Amino acid sequence: MGKKRVMLPANSIDLSAVKYEPEVIQAPHLTGFLFKLFIKIIEAPFIGSLIISHLKKQNKMVETLQYTEIPEGPMFKPEFPPQEPEHGVIAVDEDGKPEDRVESALKCLPHYDPASCLEGDLASTFKYWKIRDYAYAYRSRIVTPSAVVERIISVVEEYNNKSPPCPLLISFNAEEVRKQAAASTRRFEEGNPISILDGIFMAIKDDIDCYPHPSKGATIWMHEVRSVKKDAVCVSRLRSCGVILIGKANMHELGMGTTGNNSNYGTTRNPHAHERYTGGSSSGPAAIVASGLCSAALGTDGGGSVRIPSSLCGVVGLKTTHGRTSMEGSLCGSGTVEIIGPIASSVEDAMLVYAAILGSSPADRIALRPSPPCLPILPSPDTADGLGSLRLGKYTAWFNDVHSPEISDKCEDALNLLSKTHGCEVVEIVIPELHEMRTAHLVSIGSETQCSLNPDCEDGKRVRLTHDTRTSLALFQSFTGSDYVAAQRLRRRIMYHHMEIFKKVDIIVTPTTGMTAPVIPPSALKFGETDMKVTGYLMRFIIAANLLGLPAISVPIGYDKQGLPIGLQLLGRPWAEATILRLASAVEDLCGKPKKKPASFYDVLKMN
Amino acid sequence: MGKKRVMLPANSIDLSAVKYEPEVIQAPHLTGFLFKLFIKIIEAPFIGSLIISHLKKQNKMVETLQYTEIPEGPMFKPEFPPQEPEHGVIAVDEDGKPEDRVESALKCLPHYDPASCLEGDLASTFKYWKIRDYAYAYRSRIVTPSAVVERIISVVEEYNNKSPPCPLLISFNAEEVRKQAAASTRRFEEGNPISILDGIFMAIKDDIDCYPHPSKGATIWMHEVRSVKKDAVCVSRLRSCGVILIGKANMHELGMGTTGNNSNYGTTRNPHAHERYTGGSSSGPAAIVASGLCSAALGTDGGGSVRIPSSLCGVVGLKTTHGRTSMEGSLCGSGTVEIIGPIASSVEDAMLVYAAILGSSPADRIALRPSPPCLPILPSPDTADGLGSLRLGKYTAWFNDVHSPEISDKCEDALNLLSKTHGCEVVEIVIPELHEMRTAHLVSIGSETQCSLNPDCEDGKRVRLTHDTRTSLALFQSFTGSDYVAAQRLRRRIMYHHMEIFKKVDIIVTPTTGMTAPVIPPSALKFGETDMKVTGYLMRFIIAANLLGLPAISVPIGYDKQGLPIGLQLLGRPWAEATILRLASAVEDLCGKPKKKPASFYDVLKMN
Repeated sequence: MGKKRVMLPANSIDLSAVKYEPEVIQAPHLTGFLFKLFIKIIEAPFIGSLIISHLKKQNKMVETLQYTEIPEGPMFKPEFPPQEPEHGVIAVDEDGKPEDRVESALKCLPHYDPASCLEGDLASTFKYWKIRDYAYAYRSRIVTPSAVVERIISVVEEYNNKSPPCPLLISFNAEEVRKQAAASTRRFEEGNPISILDGIFMAIKDDIDCYPHPSKGATIWMHEVRSVKKDAVCVSRLRSCGVILIGKANMHELGMGTTGNNSNYGTTRNPHAHERYTGGSSSGPAAIVASGLCSAALGTDGGGSVRIPSSLCGVVGLKTTHGRTSMEGSLCGSGTVEIIGPIASSVEDAMLVYAAILGSSPADRIALRPSPPCLPILPSPDTADGLGSLRLGKYTAWFNDVHSPEISDKCEDALNLLSKTHGCEVVEIVIPELHEMRTAHLVSIGSETQCSLNPDCEDGKRVRLTHDTRTSLALFQSFTGSDYVAAQRLRRRIMYHHMEIFKKVDIIVTPTTGMTAPVIPPSALKFGETDMKVTGYLMRFIIAANLLGLPAISVPIGYDKQGLPIGLQLLGRPWAEATILRLASAVEDLCGKPKKKPASFYDVLKMN
Repeated sequence: MGKKRVMLPANSIDLSAVKYEPEVIQAPHLTGFLFKLFIKIIEAPFIGSLIISHLKKQNKMVETLQYTEIPEGPMFKPEFPPQEPEHGVIAVDEDGKPEDRVESALKCLPHYDPASCLEGDLASTFKYWKIRDYAYAYRSRIVTPSAVVERIISVVEEYNNKSPPCPLLISFNAEEVRKQAAASTRRFEEGNPISILDGIFMAIKDDIDCYPHPSKGATIWMHEVRSVKKDAVCVSRLRSCGVILIGKANMHELGMGTTGNNSNYGTTRNPHAHERYTGGSSSGPAAIVASGLCSAALGTDGGGSVRIPSSLCGVVGLKTTHGRTSMEGSLCGSGTVEIIGPIASSVEDAMLVYAAILGSSPADRIALRPSPPCLPILPSPDTADGLGSLRLGKYTAWFNDVHSPEISDKCEDALNLLSKTHGCEVVEIVIPELHEMRTAHLVSIGSETQCSLNPDCEDGKRVRLTHDTRTSLALFQSFTGSDYVAAQRLRRRIMYHHMEIFKKVDIIVTPTTGMTAPVIPPSALKFGETDMKVTGYLMRFIIAANLLGLPAISVPIGYDKQGLPIGLQLLGRPWAEATILRLASAVEDLCGKPKKKPASFYDVLKMN
């Protein structure tokens, strides 16, 4: 008796009475043998479900989902109110040729000066080559894709042979990549490159189809039950621009983790500190870009999986608006929170890849959205940039709730620079119901993932998953249909709160993650690790973009005292990729490109 | 091992290989003490969930939802492909005045001849008075609403005092109804009736708000936790047309049953046979109309709750397209399968009420649909009716899978008459995956209902629900979030199959129910009854309209040997209420109005 809680309608909440409640996570930190034992117990009948029930109650999930009357009806996937068009954008045809869109994007970039890249001693000065640098080098015959590919192959193989294993790619075929490079080299020789992306090397996360590689999602069995017959839509768009696809990048198994721990194939190491995690789940894509091996990579982001590793590895990660990119041909194709997005070493490169891959499946176009979709114009140095009109929303109590104040301080410095240089206004905001937002997201992604995996799990494949995944599944299968519907009711509330905030501000700013790259416990390499407190820090600011389908970008702004990268996250209005890319570009210019050379930085252009 | 089943994509199914599989339902039939004991067991920890698990496996639910790989992504609520506009309809403004819409509908009706109604001896010749008959009688001063109301009050009170109780209404206030009647009488005296519906008596199902009555949903506690401050949108539209709302009609508790059994307030009896069920869950609304007490009633239909009792009581029940009527102010407001629809004694009256109540909430208008919505033109006797072009789809193996062949034979006779008289073509069709359709519906409505009830159930109200409801809830709470998502994936397949069929036919015809009104076991009156076999027969043909949001109508076509009514169901394309109403009107003309006087037929117009 007396358990029932009644929520006021979302539009009756008194924001001035909302207090920030720090996230309290109650769960054991386990690695090695104890973790193995834990799995046995939580998968056991009765006792397992009792333990899961207890953990759910401790973490207020039962209270939120079962005892609470939520007045709003369910919102099963992001439904956006009509949006004002963004200013200063050019329209592109999402059904047109990817190379035409990339061409349009190219015209939005500031003037290119090859000297800025090619001058100086590349080996001593850390600097990522941008896509336009490669394009210039190829067109000027400074280097060919066939020459670059050999450097890449040697690095990939070097990583594949390390002990303990820490592969960047888990499916790789040197001959196949050489062939792609040779074809691109031929196009340059014939003076017919397809686009600015021709000959550009990219990696694809292992949960996105890239023919002829299998898509294992970093499991040891997915390829046995699901064959790959063609590229995912996004991958085929890159390929038609001339991109060279080097293989399938390592990841946290099935995307169900935020560290990148992988006991199946080995855990990818952070290029800035080899004893640390990359973050996940797109561990391989972020590490490949951060180590200088590829210009860009595609990842999936259902709970920060593009943004978290981008932040921890010091690169740029773009989470696109739900429905902006096609999910066809990915393992998480039918979820309501996942998208495919690019990871790149600069905002400019992220935008070029975004231009190539954008365009949803026609079936996804029922939801209201501006048509045609828009491409950003990046501010050019000699024209008014329009950033002065942007209002940046900051929920300070939340913003500062990080593992070390260095993170929030550095992010604050970036905002101050933006204000000073561009005149952006920082506006204090309040975001209510952050606990409800996290819970709604967990139940949504959990139930949807469980549904996709059930037939194979029930068919005996569950025991061939990592302990980490099995822990998540034990939780996910405890969610009821009613919990799922309650989560969707909460989604409608959280959407309302955010749309109200976006009446007052243009962008919500936070650190991307609440901590920098965590150390990999050696005991976690063989049987994995569960540490919900680390997960809490890594996902703290991530959820709104997934639950609500909003665009967000993580842009590197500097390093903590240990030299680990810190990322700033910009969360935009629905479909407002242009605005967040433009602001991210300004942040990048102000905070300087990462200057600390990652331990594994490879200058793939420098021929020995 | 070997449990996994893989479905082919819906568009690859070979229909010629589909075999009709009769529904197999494995569940005990329980009433009285045994039913009480059963509840104790299934609500007990562990053993309860084991039994439920067993029943779900027996009924192939686990196989369908957990072992099966479903290639389609989830469709969380009905999403319709763009539809061709219906022919011969007039457009009305769903945001306009209800009385204007009713006026438009009136113009679509054939010429009205008062003689056809008022002639003859009403006491001896069974005949329902239509809304236009009342309207004529009021305008001709033959009778006044204030005179009629007294007859109605005496009948309602007669029923309320029966033993055992079998009330038609569970909230009724004679004085309040008298006031409404007096106001209407005054309008007629002043020569200012509001519309054709002025002074027309209607009842509202107890799960739709009708101020100042409480909305209990036939529970004994809902009014303690949810107060009614105004009419539901549909009810307020009726009221603004001058309708007299007599009170809250009895129903199966919370709509969670198909018989109308009600151990809280007493079970409403079938006007055609007092020892039999009315069907449910809209038991009261159907009985009130069938017994001649009111012209119409509003019901809700989430799993046949309007059509089943209409069929069993020999009246017309319209299930509207999902999103056609507003659900605001009903207990099932946020579900994906429920609608509010009219029950009336003739198609003409159903159409007038439909015209008054139609118009969704703006929030529901995101889904694709023709704008503005359309009103039907009923065929007038002296013009070409356009019915000859209609193709009627019939899945014979399913159509004939009924409790007694009398039902399918009578329905077949009706189709033959339609062919002969109007030239409609009957086309043999195949509907695959009927088991999957039933499963997807059960999981959807179950999880959504559970979500609404959870906070109160957890707060100690569960034990104050009927045994029938508690049995359903024990099943519903066993559905996982993954089951819910799997059900939505099935919904997309079932939608595909139906949209393919609707490329070949205009209407899918079936009996409304697989059996006529079942007997009420005397032992079921006090503690209720669970009989899934009866439920199976009653819901056999019902589901597509709910899971897919399609419009459907049940129209009486005759009686079985025991004198119990048989209904024909017409299932239409999305938004095609006009077509099914028009065809239903032809069926009504051909099969004759019900001629058997129900045991409880009250000629409320005949003054003693």
